[in-house]
This record gives sequence, structure tokens and C-alpha cells, in this order.
Amino acid sequence: MFKTSVTIEWGDCDEAGIVFYPNYFYWMDCSFQRLLRARGLSQREVRKRFGAVTPITQAHADFTAPARYDDALDITVSVTLEGERRFRVDYDFHSGGKRVGSGHEIRAFALIGADGAIKGAPVNPEFMSILTPAT
Amino acid sequence: MFKTSVTIEWGDCDEAGIVFYPNYFYWMDCSFQRLLRARGLSQREVRKRFGAVTPITQAHADFTAPARYDDALDITVSVTLEGERRFRVDYDFHSGGKRVGSGHEIRAFALIGADGAIKGAPVNPEFMSILTPAT
Amino acid sequence: MFKTSVTIEWGDCDEAGIVFYPNYFYWMDCSFQRLLRARGLSQREVRKRFGAVTPITQAHADFTAPARYDDALDITVSVTLEGERRFRVDYDFHSGGKRVGSGHEIRAFALIGADGAIKGAPVNPEFMSILTPAT
Amino acid sequence: MFKTSVTIEWGDCDEAGIVFYPNYFYWMDCSFQRLLRARGLSQREVRKRFGAVTPITQAHADFTAPARYDDALDITVSVTLEGERRFRVDYDFHSGGKRVGSGHEIRAFALIGADGAIKGAPVNPEFMSILTPAT
Repeated sequence: MFKTSVTIEWGDCDEAGIVFYPNYFYWMDCSFQRLLRARGLSQREVRKRFGAVTPITQAHADFTAPARYDDALDITVSVTLEGERRFRVDYDFHSGGKRVGSGHEIRAFALIGADGAIKGAPVNPEFMSILTPAT
Repeated sequence: MFKTSVTIEWGDCDEAGIVFYPNYFYWMDCSFQRLLRARGLSQREVRKRFGAVTPITQAHADFTAPARYDDALDITVSVTLEGERRFRVDYDFHSGGKRVGSGHEIRAFALIGADGAIKGAPVNPEFMSILTPAT
Repeated sequence: MFKTSVTIEWGDCDEAGIVFYPNYFYWMDCSFQRLLRARGLSQREVRKRFGAVTPITQAHADFTAPARYDDALDITVSVTLEGERRFRVDYDFHSGGKRVGSGHEIRAFALIGADGAIKGAPVNPEFMSILTPAT
Repeated sequence: MFKTSVTIEWGDCDEAGIVFYPNYFYWMDCSFQRLLRARGLSQREVRKRFGAVTPITQAHADFTAPARYDDALDITVSVTLEGERRFRVDYDFHSGGKRVGSGHEIRAFALIGADGAIKGAPVNPEFMSILTPAT
């Protein structure tokens, strides 16, 4: 499990004074990138080391309580295999100790061919073990 | 069913040259606002006429094909009741006649009290019939 | 002079109910892309036809009146040469016939070398005449 | 002088692999909010304590070098009085010790009347001294 946090900025909120919800997906993507970075990877490194990209096939979020400008948002991230060719990234959002929402992404594992085209493939086991260390 | 469209802008795409996915949720919200507007409503009008707001409780999207800068995205929107106190807004995204994704939002119907606090309530039938005209 | 317009969306406004100002720069960039498109060009076409990109070196905006959710924003765009190697794109924003702001971008003209690196160059006269037709 | 930093996220970059420039203005606004927060203020606190808001009247940026996904951006912020009724916030952006850009905002000081309307006023000296401590 990986933890990160963001502070909700003025520009992230709408006229109702609460987070404009697409921003939660921006933070989900950011948190996944931060997880990669914390494990010594990055989109570019994944490309170089595994010849792969991880396109999103599904994104989902449930919102249970409003969050506002200046609130700190604590995010936990965990990764699990989803079938053979996909993995799922789960996110939990807490603010001031209270859960404000949760969500997930499903990402495919796709290899980049010599012509630049990408093609679905089984998730690389080494890649997977880097994202889901036994702790 | 309501139809609208957007053109995918340079700033909507990421380094991979495809739409950065949180933007789909921005377009979902925009499309709902446009539907309200096309029916003579708006967030402010909903507030005035029904004393209500429609907070998001769930958002979901499935991505089936990439869409790129300069592509026109055709969006269809349809609204259905979801239980007594919520409604669901379904979105379909097509580009060049091909489906690139779909998604939905679940929105609660909430009345604004005298103190400004909001409280879940049965979806107003008049509001619902405006969003789902028999055609 | 090129004209385009956008509708200010719910998610474009902040808690004060007015446009969160970085969005004006997003619309400036969009308007420039629309101008390119209207002239049969696009970032990709500029790259192919002129071997060039047009990186931003300066962006500026003055805000004279607030604009709000649901307002239509009418944007006029005009392009002029700025020295030998740059051009300037001016933008005017009106809403309901009233000027709400104005701004400009300065963009360099840069050729893409065989190694992919870009290098400043005199603005291609054909490119310039496409963006500034005598009318 | 106040210092803060952001990490450039995947979604902040465009197809060219560099920051989509309107994001610099988002970071400028965020940095100003962080400065307020670091001084024990916030937009809401400014409203409560000084009965004031600080609307933007001008925003400007110069871009001198590209910044990319995963780069840390170090931002310095300084505030100076600009005439009697406005103040100027200057921003410097460095990445890896190299300057990549700079910019400023000009903000008006405006009092909120009993009817909610705002009206330009001399910048409150206490507010100003909080933002520009003698060091």
C-alpha cells in the first residue's frame, strides 16, 4: 500500500465550494504516477525497461462526503492483478480522518511493437511485483 | 436522448497523444449542464425553481478506443431514475462514427434548507420529466 | 481576424462563481488551434508542411470584468509578426457585448531538425500569410 | 520571499511532452494560496478578517526553457505594492537549478459590501505587511 497526499487548491473547487469531481481522477492518475516514481519507475522508465505502456480501460469513483478548498486529501493506493492482461489500482480518499471517497482504475498492459503500435499482453510479473511488494 | 459534441483540444491530450482521461469526466459534466440548458434549466435555475442541487455520488467510465487532438467527440446523454432519491446520467462517446467510450454519473437530488444545508430528498417528478421527455 | 466562442462551464468557475483565470489561457490556446484548423492547418499539419512547431514564449492577459458559468464568451483572434522569428496572437474576450478581458501570446517559429531537436528560425512567410490573410 | 514546489504530473503535459502552458498560471495561483496559508491566512480568512477579496486584474508569464513530466518545479513568490489599490505577485520557476520561466499577477484589493458587491479599496496595510515581512 502506497500513501500520498494533495492539498485541495482554490482552482480545484466549483461554485458550490466543493471539489469539481473530475479532479479526483486527476489525483488518481497523479497518485499512480507517484507510486511508479516511489518504486524507481515512471511512464518513461516503464517504456524503456518493459517496452510497455499501461492504458486506462476503466475509471470509477464513489463520492461519500464533500471536500473543500484548503483540505488535505490523504490518498492510499493499492495494486492487484485483474485477470491476466490487466491490473487494478484502488484509491481511498480521506480528509481529516474521514473518508470522502474511493475509486479505482483498470489498466491494461500493452507492449510497444517495432512499428510503434501497442498490443495487449500478459502483465509482466516483474512489473507487477514492483508495484505490489510483499510487506 | 440529448446530443452534443466537443472538439478535442491540444491541451486535453497527454504526451502519448491521446486524451488525458479525467477530461472525459469534465465533458460528462459539461454535457449534463448543456442538457439542463437545452431544457431551459441550469444549476442556478434548478436551485431557484426546485430549491435543489444534484451532487454526484458516483462516476464511471469505460474506454474502448483512443481519441486524439482535433477529433470531434459526439456525446449522447440519457437520464433515468435510480431508486427514489437518485438519477443516473448515461453518456456515450463516439468519434468518426466509432465508439471510443461510455460512462455514467449517479446524482442525488438534495433540497437546500433554510440554513443552507442540503438534505437528500425524492427526485422531483417535474424535474425528472423535464430531463426525460417522452419522445 | 478570426472569431470563435466558448460557453463557460460549471467546472471552469471557482468558489467565487467567476472564471478561474488560468482557463482564459486554455481558451487562448484553443482559439489559436481553431484558427489553425479553420485555415486548413493543425499542429500536426504545421509540423508536416513546414517542419515547424510554434512554442509559446510569452502569455499575458488583462481581466476587466468577471464572466460566469453559462455565459457565452466571444473571442476574436488576430496574428501579427513580432520581429523576424516570432509572431504575436492577440485575443479579445467579450460576453453579452461587453469586453471582459484581452490577452496575447508570443510564439516562436522553430524548425525541427533531423535529430528531433528544435531550433528558432525566421517565421515562414507562407505560414504567416495563411494566418493573416488580407481581407 | 516564499518558496514552494510542485512536481509536474503526466496530465500537465501536452503531446509535445512539455508543460501545457496554462498550468503555469494554475501553479501561480496555487503558490499564492500557499503563501496565504503559510502566513495563517486563506481566501476565506482574508474575507473574514479583512472583509476583502483579491481579484486578478493581470497575469503574465515568460517561458524560457521547457519543463517536463516528473520534473520538480521550484517556485519563489514575492509580493510588492502596485499603486495604492493593487499588489503584484512575482513568481520564478526553476527546475534542476535552471530557470524555466517567470511571471506575475496583479491583484486588486476589494472590500465586500453589505449587499455582497465588491468595491476596490486601498490595500489594507496589515494585510500587506503579513505578505511582505521584513526579513
